[in-house]
Amino acid sequence: MNLILLFEDDYIDTNTVSLSGRRLKHIRTVHKVTDGKSLSVGTINGLIGTGIVKSVTKERVLMKTDLSVSPPKPLPLKLVLAMPRPKVFSRILACVTAMGVKEIYLIHAQKVEKSYWQSPRLDSENIRKQLILGLEQAKDTVMPEISFHRLFKPFVEDVLPGICENSLKLVAHPYCKKSLPVGINKPATLVVGPEGGFIPYEIEKLENTGFQAVHMGSRILTVETALPALLAKLY
Amino acid sequence: MNLILLFEDDYIDTNTVSLSGRRLKHIRTVHKVTDGKSLSVGTINGLIGTGIVKSVTKERVLMKTDLSVSPPKPLPLKLVLAMPRPKVFSRILACVTAMGVKEIYLIHAQKVEKSYWQSPRLDSENIRKQLILGLEQAKDTVMPEISFHRLFKPFVEDVLPGICENSLKLVAHPYCKKSLPVGINKPATLVVGPEGGFIPYEIEKLENTGFQAVHMGSRILTVETALPALLAKLY
Repeated sequence: MNLILLFEDDYIDTNTVSLSGRRLKHIRTVHKVTDGKSLSVGTINGLIGTGIVKSVTKERVLMKTDLSVSPPKPLPLKLVLAMPRPKVFSRILACVTAMGVKEIYLIHAQKVEKSYWQSPRLDSENIRKQLILGLEQAKDTVMPEISFHRLFKPFVEDVLPGICENSLKLVAHPYCKKSLPVGINKPATLVVGPEGGFIPYEIEKLENTGFQAVHMGSRILTVETALPALLAKLY
Repeated sequence: MNLILLFEDDYIDTNTVSLSGRRLKHIRTVHKVTDGKSLSVGTINGLIGTGIVKSVTKERVLMKTDLSVSPPKPLPLKLVLAMPRPKVFSRILACVTAMGVKEIYLIHAQKVEKSYWQSPRLDSENIRKQLILGLEQAKDTVMPEISFHRLFKPFVEDVLPGICENSLKLVAHPYCKKSLPVGINKPATLVVGPEGGFIPYEIEKLENTGFQAVHMGSRILTVETALPALLAKLY
């Protein structure tokens, strides 16, 4: 928690917040704050700045806020990701949120097990928690938007063209000729397949929508490792 | 398991292996192989190629091997990493192994909790398992070498100069002026601190040994996300 995210409900007047629960625990046990200490804070979807601790008890911490700095720039990248294994789903959400992705489309693909869509990790409470963890980690405040698309073909044919308009269209695919462009410095839509990859039909559908298959070398990486590597190379 | 790693003990003659246990289970349940099927295999620290399944039973699979391809090139990077939290230690080992790092130095730092050094995950069996997972993932065969250094100062003063000789010397540090060089295409030694970062004394010691502090932007990333991003930017 490099930044403490503040929500509307936390404000008891225009620049005073009262926090309890997880954030209070963190402030007391990790920051070990005393009155007068200054912490990094930011309002959800708003500015960042400092919070001066006015008083801290077992029940709540009161802080005066002074927010004037814009959150860090988002990555100009829309991420279309085949639904990952539930075990890594949460970590991946927090990871790409920390890296600054603001639009995430989770899609089905042939090699995505149907059971992944039933995971309790997909409930909105867990998703919100992971996004908040990612924002707190990266000192950002702007919530990404997540959507789910359980049918590959209608997504690619009807939804994806609207998403990827006016952006560089890339699909990460280990078995192809072209290597990933680096330092592109412009908007992109990146499609990342499931473990085991997209099947040829899926690659073909994406290519027909204007996507170019690109690889990152001969090493096949897990999606957890590949995602930060892909984003870091692109920007 | 994109490649099945073979060890000396697996060979029953010069080009026939008999596998049981974890690899057999994977071959039967994930690859769902039948006789005659060809799989990617590689000998530990040796060549890669194909294994043709000769017979498969509940007890073992027999394969004829044909190995003639060199493993993928290693990254010309030595990684010096402050001991991570036990929870992420195993994943990080597998991740950097998959990315091709061959020398990993795990070190102490002020913000590394002493208890991390007592974790059962540090035993050689678990470490070997994680390295194998990383190699199997990336279709590599060359085992990285790992060493542990529980005293920061003697490591930096007496050991590190020998490690980093003739390489670009970088320490990843969020709060510094210089940004990480990209696509360097030459040997480097990269030092990565603990969550919470190195303390000023530690940065100073590293700078005195010729290391340059470099950042990857204003977003603070977890070590799990930062490592693949750092390696991807550098190479």
